[in-house]
Amino acid sequence: MQLEFLGTGAGSPGKFRNVTSVALKLLDETNEIWLFDCGEATQHQILKTNIKPRKIDKIFISHLHGDHIFGLPGFLSSRSNQGGNSELTIYGPTGIKDFVMTSLRVSETKLSYRINFIDIKDGIIFENENYIVKAKELDHRIKSYGFRVSEKDHPGELLVEKLKELAIPSGPIYGEIKQGKQVTLADGTIIEGKDFIGRPQPGRVVTILGDTRQTNNIEILAKDADALVHESTFGKQEGNLARNYYHSTNVQAARIARKSHAKQLLLTHISARYTGKLEHQLEKEAREIFPQTKVVRDFDIVDIPLP
Amino acid sequence: MQLEFLGTGAGSPGKFRNVTSVALKLLDETNEIWLFDCGEATQHQILKTNIKPRKIDKIFISHLHGDHIFGLPGFLSSRSNQGGNSELTIYGPTGIKDFVMTSLRVSETKLSYRINFIDIKDGIIFENENYIVKAKELDHRIKSYGFRVSEKDHPGELLVEKLKELAIPSGPIYGEIKQGKQVTLADGTIIEGKDFIGRPQPGRVVTILGDTRQTNNIEILAKDADALVHESTFGKQEGNLARNYYHSTNVQAARIARKSHAKQLLLTHISARYTGKLEHQLEKEAREIFPQTKVVRDFDIVDIPLP
Ligand SMILES: [Zn+2]
Ligand SMILES: [Zn+2]
Repeated sequence: MQLEFLGTGAGSPGKFRNVTSVALKLLDETNEIWLFDCGEATQHQILKTNIKPRKIDKIFISHLHGDHIFGLPGFLSSRSNQGGNSELTIYGPTGIKDFVMTSLRVSETKLSYRINFIDIKDGIIFENENYIVKAKELDHRIKSYGFRVSEKDHPGELLVEKLKELAIPSGPIYGEIKQGKQVTLADGTIIEGKDFIGRPQPGRVVTILGDTRQTNNIEILAKDADALVHESTFGKQEGNLARNYYHSTNVQAARIARKSHAKQLLLTHISARYTGKLEHQLEKEAREIFPQTKVVRDFDIVDIPLP
Repeated sequence: MQLEFLGTGAGSPGKFRNVTSVALKLLDETNEIWLFDCGEATQHQILKTNIKPRKIDKIFISHLHGDHIFGLPGFLSSRSNQGGNSELTIYGPTGIKDFVMTSLRVSETKLSYRINFIDIKDGIIFENENYIVKAKELDHRIKSYGFRVSEKDHPGELLVEKLKELAIPSGPIYGEIKQGKQVTLADGTIIEGKDFIGRPQPGRVVTILGDTRQTNNIEILAKDADALVHESTFGKQEGNLARNYYHSTNVQAARIARKSHAKQLLLTHISARYTGKLEHQLEKEAREIFPQTKVVRDFDIVDIPLP
């Protein structure tokens, strides 16, 4: 489980940061990649990575501002041109389907795969055996969401040594025991599977927020997260600007990371004004409040280790 | 008058060529820039040039395929963010307004300037005192146009030496003579202004085509052009492919350049397959037919000198 940042800038593309997109790479887990937001030229950024567009099967759109969505039509077209043919689902606020479908219709683009659109609202927006994704509304000028991706707990390992101590011969029976079933041995002994399974490995939590000013829902989304991706459009001294423009500062993000007991804070949506020393300062100010903070850059890859 | 190529690739962006866009720089002439097509990340390409988005006051869209239009919403937004506030006109096939307005509406983008949309069809689509632009339909899978931009003839210079020979004193009267008016001198002599004006300097012609397979209209658009920008999606051996996919080959472009007596041929819309030796060959094959051929690359600047 890794985050690969494809665009970490705010508003307009700059020389050093593209507009917003981040990939959640679930390659070791379930061999798929999820994209969060898709600003213009996200497909160009992907060209410089080892990400294969056909592996991206879900795209989550936090909000409909242009710097978060204008790369969608091009990405979808190229995914098709490059042989992607598996279904793709786009989760986003109402309006995303209108934008994508108009773009494809006007340009007479025929995709080689089907797109599902899911209009999001507060609550569980996706769940399968491996993951659960919850959305909650944030506080931006336009409807904006944050996402809490929770990996389900990994079942415990089979305690092979313990089975061997009891001289239980290996075979298909081990599979049944691993599933926690009750099993009767040849000699009539009854074995409870659950006694031979180690502690489940808790799943990881990654919280990725859209643009927002400070609001209570952030803490709920970020509670005990292994990684919190939070915008930081403004710096410490600009709290009023941040509030007026519906954005956050670096130190606001750091405070919420501390309060919600996140394990690491990744600051993104960085204004082009913050380069060199100023970028360093942005990180430093946040670290004074929450030491595990990083101002991410385009193409940064951040591991989310198992706890 | 210069052409600056911002994207010279075909279909999808590649590592070396972005999707289509070319700027016609009229800075010395009328201090403006016109854009022809606007594929995704055209604004990113512009960031690497000295082009100021606010100087772009006209955008001509040849056809609605995604690789020619998906950069429009982002370009328009950034032009506004960067302080552009002068009116901008978009000329394109029916549908371009739908795409642009849906993108701006869904993303709640408020521009600081007004956009006019002009639906194009065959004929004169723009004319002022300096330029005339004619469009003609080409032959692509979707409605596609070529543009012939003609600079109006520059009026001849005032023949000051000749006036001095006649001992006509300089003053406001020179202005009237330069305008070709009939003027009566203090001594009653009548002067015909046109006798004191040099030969007019013929204006230049630049022809920029959208994607197309070979069709008679190309020759009409390209007749005696100072520069012909022609797509070359396929190579010499791929005439059938070109026809089937509604595109052209390098040698078809060269033949039409020769036939229409163009002064130079600029091949663009180059497939990502043509790199290194193959790219060189694409140019070589065309030069065997029309020596003044160049396969252009992103950021190439081509001067269109006065004849
Ligand atoms: Zn926003
Ligand atoms: Zn086309």
